[in-house]
Amino acid sequence: MPKKKVAIIMGSDSDLPIVKKAIDKLKSFDIPTQVQIISAHRTPDLAADFAKNAISNDVGVIIAAAGMAAHLAGVIAAHTILPVIGLPIKSTLEGLDSLLSTVQMPPGVPVATVGINNADNAAILAAQILAITDSDVSLKLAQMKENMCNRVIEKNKNLK
Amino acid sequence: MPKKKVAIIMGSDSDLPIVKKAIDKLKSFDIPTQVQIISAHRTPDLAADFAKNAISNDVGVIIAAAGMAAHLAGVIAAHTILPVIGLPIKSTLEGLDSLLSTVQMPPGVPVATVGINNADNAAILAAQILAITDSDVSLKLAQMKENMCNRVIEKNKNLK
Amino acid sequence: MPKKKVAIIMGSDSDLPIVKKAIDKLKSFDIPTQVQIISAHRTPDLAADFAKNAISNDVGVIIAAAGMAAHLAGVIAAHTILPVIGLPIKSTLEGLDSLLSTVQMPPGVPVATVGINNADNAAILAAQILAITDSDVSLKLAQMKENMCNRVIEKNKNLK
Amino acid sequence: MPKKKVAIIMGSDSDLPIVKKAIDKLKSFDIPTQVQIISAHRTPDLAADFAKNAISNDVGVIIAAAGMAAHLAGVIAAHTILPVIGLPIKSTLEGLDSLLSTVQMPPGVPVATVGINNADNAAILAAQILAITDSDVSLKLAQMKENMCNRVIEKNKNLK
Amino acid sequence: MPKKKVAIIMGSDSDLPIVKKAIDKLKSFDIPTQVQIISAHRTPDLAADFAKNAISNDVGVIIAAAGMAAHLAGVIAAHTILPVIGLPIKSTLEGLDSLLSTVQMPPGVPVATVGINNADNAAILAAQILAITDSDVSLKLAQMKENMCNRVIEKNKNLK
Amino acid sequence: MPKKKVAIIMGSDSDLPIVKKAIDKLKSFDIPTQVQIISAHRTPDLAADFAKNAISNDVGVIIAAAGMAAHLAGVIAAHTILPVIGLPIKSTLEGLDSLLSTVQMPPGVPVATVGINNADNAAILAAQILAITDSDVSLKLAQMKENMCNRVIEKNKNLK
Amino acid sequence: MPKKKVAIIMGSDSDLPIVKKAIDKLKSFDIPTQVQIISAHRTPDLAADFAKNAISNDVGVIIAAAGMAAHLAGVIAAHTILPVIGLPIKSTLEGLDSLLSTVQMPPGVPVATVGINNADNAAILAAQILAITDSDVSLKLAQMKENMCNRVIEKNKNLK
Amino acid sequence: MPKKKVAIIMGSDSDLPIVKKAIDKLKSFDIPTQVQIISAHRTPDLAADFAKNAISNDVGVIIAAAGMAAHLAGVIAAHTILPVIGLPIKSTLEGLDSLLSTVQMPPGVPVATVGINNADNAAILAAQILAITDSDVSLKLAQMKENMCNRVIEKNKNLK
Repeated sequence: MPKKKVAIIMGSDSDLPIVKKAIDKLKSFDIPTQVQIISAHRTPDLAADFAKNAISNDVGVIIAAAGMAAHLAGVIAAHTILPVIGLPIKSTLEGLDSLLSTVQMPPGVPVATVGINNADNAAILAAQILAITDSDVSLKLAQMKENMCNRVIEKNKNLK
Repeated sequence: MPKKKVAIIMGSDSDLPIVKKAIDKLKSFDIPTQVQIISAHRTPDLAADFAKNAISNDVGVIIAAAGMAAHLAGVIAAHTILPVIGLPIKSTLEGLDSLLSTVQMPPGVPVATVGINNADNAAILAAQILAITDSDVSLKLAQMKENMCNRVIEKNKNLK
Repeated sequence: MPKKKVAIIMGSDSDLPIVKKAIDKLKSFDIPTQVQIISAHRTPDLAADFAKNAISNDVGVIIAAAGMAAHLAGVIAAHTILPVIGLPIKSTLEGLDSLLSTVQMPPGVPVATVGINNADNAAILAAQILAITDSDVSLKLAQMKENMCNRVIEKNKNLK
Repeated sequence: MPKKKVAIIMGSDSDLPIVKKAIDKLKSFDIPTQVQIISAHRTPDLAADFAKNAISNDVGVIIAAAGMAAHLAGVIAAHTILPVIGLPIKSTLEGLDSLLSTVQMPPGVPVATVGINNADNAAILAAQILAITDSDVSLKLAQMKENMCNRVIEKNKNLK
Repeated sequence: MPKKKVAIIMGSDSDLPIVKKAIDKLKSFDIPTQVQIISAHRTPDLAADFAKNAISNDVGVIIAAAGMAAHLAGVIAAHTILPVIGLPIKSTLEGLDSLLSTVQMPPGVPVATVGINNADNAAILAAQILAITDSDVSLKLAQMKENMCNRVIEKNKNLK
Repeated sequence: MPKKKVAIIMGSDSDLPIVKKAIDKLKSFDIPTQVQIISAHRTPDLAADFAKNAISNDVGVIIAAAGMAAHLAGVIAAHTILPVIGLPIKSTLEGLDSLLSTVQMPPGVPVATVGINNADNAAILAAQILAITDSDVSLKLAQMKENMCNRVIEKNKNLK
Repeated sequence: MPKKKVAIIMGSDSDLPIVKKAIDKLKSFDIPTQVQIISAHRTPDLAADFAKNAISNDVGVIIAAAGMAAHLAGVIAAHTILPVIGLPIKSTLEGLDSLLSTVQMPPGVPVATVGINNADNAAILAAQILAITDSDVSLKLAQMKENMCNRVIEKNKNLK
Repeated sequence: MPKKKVAIIMGSDSDLPIVKKAIDKLKSFDIPTQVQIISAHRTPDLAADFAKNAISNDVGVIIAAAGMAAHLAGVIAAHTILPVIGLPIKSTLEGLDSLLSTVQMPPGVPVATVGINNADNAAILAAQILAITDSDVSLKLAQMKENMCNRVIEKNKNLK
């Protein structure tokens, strides 16, 4: 069985500066990624096709980044049983519109939502999901967690 | 050319008590309607098919009612150039989530949004759109406007 | 019958940089426009006159842009049965005040509200409304929709 | 010169249970009132006529109560230089829509806004305005203020 | 009887750039003003003294500008029956905290609240209140209203 | 030195059902209390007097409960250097107005704010403050913390 | 390797009526569950122990339900690399406090947040995560998705 | 008995520019401080250890500064009966997320919350708490209060 990929899709190429952090983070875990612009509203058929074929394309987890009335994650989740991580992008109303459009899904079709513009957390969550059955990723996450802790301790030394 | 219909779709049958007012209002204008439950998330292919075929099915305007992360109007608008009226239904957060999910569409794919739970206005807006080239509906709208005004005058008499 | 115009009105000339995008977009559809500053609060009689005469002036759709306690679209809608598109302009409170003042109209007098500062969508919605009975505009909208889709596909090629 | 009246208008007779408190309060100050239903959206010409003639009808202050996209106070203020007190009525979104639609007026046309559903304060504010040059009302307001204070002191005795 | 003054107080001298517009506007109406920094929290006794003596100091209307948890207007209103105009200053949370702290007064002690940072409207409202019995101010307000209207008409000419 | 009291004041006797929980909780810690209705707006002089004399009346901590534009805690804090705990009471806007009016104090005059309607926490916080130098209260707080923990463990047993 | 469990924890037994739906849903997928009350604030050591031992206790995914300042999911996520699903429970402020406290985690420690009170989606998301490598669950999810679609179609028949 | 310290902890060193004001203010009161970076999510064990040992380390009051889903103050409060002052740091959503995550604690575990980014008030509140039984600090607070008042009076002189 080939290694599962994380598919990272975004509603617009203007989301790339934020989304880039998720791509880099996943690369740091050696998790294969597949990056694409897919708009729920401008390329709805592409969105449906992508989602319907994701499992057979060895995708394990999908990260969907979108702003404003952010329908992308929900539209993808409608067409697949893969876990879909919603990354709300801030463009108007401080990102409250994207957050609510992403997280408040009706019962039956969840989107695993992370914080506004928080691409790091989208990537880490995807890694955590794959790590349940992938000990390589699991080790790297544990290492990252330890590093985060150590960096705080290091900074405390400098504080004094 | 057959008379244009107003298609009224809702994300769940729990929206029917609100949506009913739109159906009745359109009937009062003698505008043919077509009512259906279509969920952007539970029946995404049905949503796409409905929207793609709406024009050839003699639909002139679409009213889409949905709550929470209300993607229905936007998903329909992605597949058609017909005007789509979004009717945000209140179920959580006082309806703020439905309102923002419906109105804050990205440039290129508008949804004509009316107030939260305001099914009357969704119907009247649909009638106003058809009335541009339909003098029957136009007359009925003018009559309704006059009646609204007269009812206020009438109530003022009772007030004293 | 002369071709229907889209009247674009704004509450203040400070709204023009946003509103300009709606004017340009309508021109790209070859839809005749009529642009005016009309303030619900500083020129209320002008607003009433404009709205009452809109139909006889061959206006088919009205776009009303305003900020803060944005009453313009509602005030216009009070005087006409033409569809009125409300374009909330952001100046304070991230535009939440303009959005709510525009969309939350009482039953009987709808305003077709688009997203905050989203002049593109106001114009496209106006075009969609006229396109129901105007095959020229209809073709241009279909073309625009295809172009939007193609641009995403093109950008995906560059992404790789 | 006849005594100035306080005109109390409301957007709908459904606002009467709230507005009643303002009427009663003004009566307790022996201030003549004039009560009417006037809708900014359903009776716009009535609203303009009322506002334009208010001064010559011996109105000194206007209280305008309305809910949702509450345009009434602003629409009235557009047509008169009398002080207009806006009373936002709660019907949706906890009254936040009425509050913002009433208070966030553009520079040049103020509305003196009181709290959501706070009809008492609308009446007292009207009385305070008239009291500047009316020593009868002034005395009654001073008395009311003393009574409010005494009631608290009285309640403290019962508390023990 | 000497002419009534408008007292303009502000919670901090950092509010002065906003408040300045109110002072200038009142001067343009030839209304005497009295300007002071008074903090509800840092100079509470000064606030109480000011408010208690305002009437005997020939103050007719008080404008109180403050930000954050803006208590100033309410604290002043507690000590006087003069009309108090609250001007919420934006410093955090887009000014929503100042607005709610100013407008949502308990029954019995109203504050006539204008929009966030809207010093122009605070001044015009004060003038409108005095104009009820001052025909000079009344004429100037009518003139200002006409000028506002004319400026819009002028701008429309330039638009073409 | 006599034992320090916790003074509990509330803006209105309608706050008593919530405030009662704070009184009971403090009694359970054997902390002497003093309970009073004091309105920042209806009894401002009483509020100032109370605050100015609190220290000499052996008050150690003040709990101030108020709703709407909740100025009480801030007004008290203006007159004393005692720690003032603000308890925002919910009556409108889900309590958001009381919360912001209480917590967003200007630099120099803090209010120690607890959650909306959370009288338990106001009392416990007062006890925690006194416990710094009162080992009796300290022991009771430690016991309460242990009990809270044990109740959860107990409930888990019942869950199975 | 034993089958992975879904651990469902809640901050208080008052959350059980909501959480119950997640338990039932997971049972319908034949996924083993482990249910516990764990409070981030009242039983912090229990929370840490639970989270640190979750992997060795064969937990694959954790669902953490909490209201108000809902820290539970974040506190658990601090101690484990397992995916943690945050279920914000509504008790105050319409659940906005729980939602923001759960979703807006700092970079490095994600919480996969679902909608307010949406226990169904928490359970389905947990199942989707396990389904990546568990074909039994995968089949059941596909079946559920088909059933949801069919129920809509069925309801449409009844609608007519 | 050694003098009680104020421990100031912050979730990230990016909070230091804000937190610095609290440190400086406490120094101006000659109150010993102890400053540390402690993340509820990246260093949870450090957080627990710090809180459990705070009393024996002669800490009297804890100030905890954090942004976003600000759990730090609550997590510390879970492990100690010392008063914990929560200082919400603004980074997203204008700081509303930090504020709600800090203040809306469940009954039993209070956090004494001050305004968003209001480090001055966190420090002053800590000093007020210690001042109950420390006459040195008490005098300095009284002096600071007098200075604040005098500065306003001074500024008023310059205003003229």
